[in-house]
Amino acid sequence: MGAGPCNVHPRVIQAMSASLLGHMDPDFVQVLDDVSSMLRLVFKTENAVTWPISGTGTAGMEAALVNVLEPGDTIVIGHNGYFAGRLSEIASRTGANVVHAPHEPGDAVDPDRIRAELQRHAKVKAVAVVHAETSTGVLTPIPALAEAAHEAGALLIVDAVTSLGGVELRVDDWGIDVCYSGTQKCLACPPGLSPITFSERAVSVLESRAAPVQSFYLDMTQLRSYFAMRAYHHTAPITMIYGLREGLRILLEEGVEQRWARHSRSARALWAGVEAIGLDMFAPEERRLPSLAAVRIPGGVDAGAVRKRLLDEHGIEISSGLANLADSIWRVGLMGYNATLANVFRFLSALEDALLAQGFELPAGASLAAAQKSLRHAD
Amino acid sequence: MGAGPCNVHPRVIQAMSASLLGHMDPDFVQVLDDVSSMLRLVFKTENAVTWPISGTGTAGMEAALVNVLEPGDTIVIGHNGYFAGRLSEIASRTGANVVHAPHEPGDAVDPDRIRAELQRHAKVKAVAVVHAETSTGVLTPIPALAEAAHEAGALLIVDAVTSLGGVELRVDDWGIDVCYSGTQKCLACPPGLSPITFSERAVSVLESRAAPVQSFYLDMTQLRSYFAMRAYHHTAPITMIYGLREGLRILLEEGVEQRWARHSRSARALWAGVEAIGLDMFAPEERRLPSLAAVRIPGGVDAGAVRKRLLDEHGIEISSGLANLADSIWRVGLMGYNATLANVFRFLSALEDALLAQGFELPAGASLAAAQKSLRHAD
Repeated sequence: MGAGPCNVHPRVIQAMSASLLGHMDPDFVQVLDDVSSMLRLVFKTENAVTWPISGTGTAGMEAALVNVLEPGDTIVIGHNGYFAGRLSEIASRTGANVVHAPHEPGDAVDPDRIRAELQRHAKVKAVAVVHAETSTGVLTPIPALAEAAHEAGALLIVDAVTSLGGVELRVDDWGIDVCYSGTQKCLACPPGLSPITFSERAVSVLESRAAPVQSFYLDMTQLRSYFAMRAYHHTAPITMIYGLREGLRILLEEGVEQRWARHSRSARALWAGVEAIGLDMFAPEERRLPSLAAVRIPGGVDAGAVRKRLLDEHGIEISSGLANLADSIWRVGLMGYNATLANVFRFLSALEDALLAQGFELPAGASLAAAQKSLRHAD
Repeated sequence: MGAGPCNVHPRVIQAMSASLLGHMDPDFVQVLDDVSSMLRLVFKTENAVTWPISGTGTAGMEAALVNVLEPGDTIVIGHNGYFAGRLSEIASRTGANVVHAPHEPGDAVDPDRIRAELQRHAKVKAVAVVHAETSTGVLTPIPALAEAAHEAGALLIVDAVTSLGGVELRVDDWGIDVCYSGTQKCLACPPGLSPITFSERAVSVLESRAAPVQSFYLDMTQLRSYFAMRAYHHTAPITMIYGLREGLRILLEEGVEQRWARHSRSARALWAGVEAIGLDMFAPEERRLPSLAAVRIPGGVDAGAVRKRLLDEHGIEISSGLANLADSIWRVGLMGYNATLANVFRFLSALEDALLAQGFELPAGASLAAAQKSLRHAD
């Protein structure tokens, strides 16, 4: 229950034990086609260019940026947390001119701030934002950002690492041009693949590049020849793709919208329970991310000792804050297979135990009662 | 039995079914340390910087090149096959000056040709060669190349994708500066990771770079902070690393040298059997690669129909030739778990069947008798 990887559905592990096929085997090509088709349903897109990149979420981020950007291009980044910082870091290595639209940590990206930067800079190639910022537990609404980007003739790149398959995301309806994710979060598969999708507009930007993509491994034009024309590019991570296929099947059996609802329901119970024992959430409720809760560490509590007790005594991993939030928040994931009420209650009682062990005063059982109450209100 | 991925040891699959740990979990950090230690034994190196890159072999190739090269640097590539071509392709995307030392396909890289290019160009940063060229089934001897590179003050980069764990390879004794491989060949794990090692000399080149590494995902300085100091860089592909740990344990139980001997023994039986039924090997015996046999397609035979019959009737995958060798060779892998006499005999009898079905005239059983005879000579 950290910021990911999260636990994997047992059926996914089982699927990964199938015999290896070659990456050019006709049967495996069918598996790849299945994965692409199912990814389109989960991304809510009809984009032809939709497949898993052979690396973790950071590889997907790098693929999005290096395929779109060329030296001298300008990109505007809505900077509201750690992973937006990573977008800047990678974009700057392409030789692009990186413009930050800075926000306070805990804020969602503000379309007006993006629009202001788009007006200040001529010919912006792309705007990039993180949909679900796992460093702060904040969800940024996308449609108004897509509108702002498109008004200025820019592409919108969206990091959906911690939202795809768990939080509402509509690539086509919202006008997203490039969107990437990771398998180890709400898709409930092991880490190792990064699903990505490019709109037709993004593909035409790719096709009109002057310089080759600086990464061969992540070059979408080369990858297209493998995924669409079965020309050898690199050896696909066969076993991981078996796992992703099963993970997507499980997701579609449940239903995309039903899965969003399950994540939301579990999250509301968690928030209510955490607040009932006197802790504060980092992000205000209206922009809070269902799949990852950032909880403020209360004064006088040894944050590391709480995490250690959760892990050692309860078998529950939660994450510390990243970078300058390391001492102020814990991050609790409710993703994919883990986004259940059973886990919420298990976590809340374990958290109470760990806080009581620190001498923190709280009425035992308060969090569970509050979580139940929040569910009665919602149902 | 194609050019890889090959079949995986059942214990590797079993190991991959363990529960996911977080990539920062103290128990997982121990797993990573085990993997690094075992990789050092297999690479025959004491290099501190030795770990798996989170991508397939091509990602390892890209990591080797983008970390060493900066714009304006010169690299000499011993060009004797398809994967040397890929080295050039990736090197050229770094802005480096790429010098080819061309060879005929089927040739090993010649140290004199490399030395001539090193004399012709001032300040060469690196020489890169493919140890085991899977496109032609050729093994290039490394020590004389290391000597040539070092005389000129250049690093030696070696692609060991199809040799590590199956063919003699001694990173420290031979003077290799950067060496990378893939998990899906002689290590008998699924594809998805690329073991890599950097010598101290390579690390100091890395540390004295003027420009940042163009890939963030593959940046060894960043990765070092994860592997050595446990600082978050990206989410490691946990399940794949469980598999690699088990694959390395199996390898070390057998013994590195014993495993080289097993590959060599199986290969000699295969070559004798293939030649006994009148087919020719592509590479001359003295530079033939044990882990991958390139077999010339005899005249009058439908190469695709033979591959299809092997796959459909015998459950054996072999690979076609790559690029301009597509119509002239088949590629038969004997790697890792698959490098056994049982597989050699199974393949030879299946090949006889597929050739007989094409009306190719051969004495049935000839290949098996020849394979057995070659073993008697060797043992």
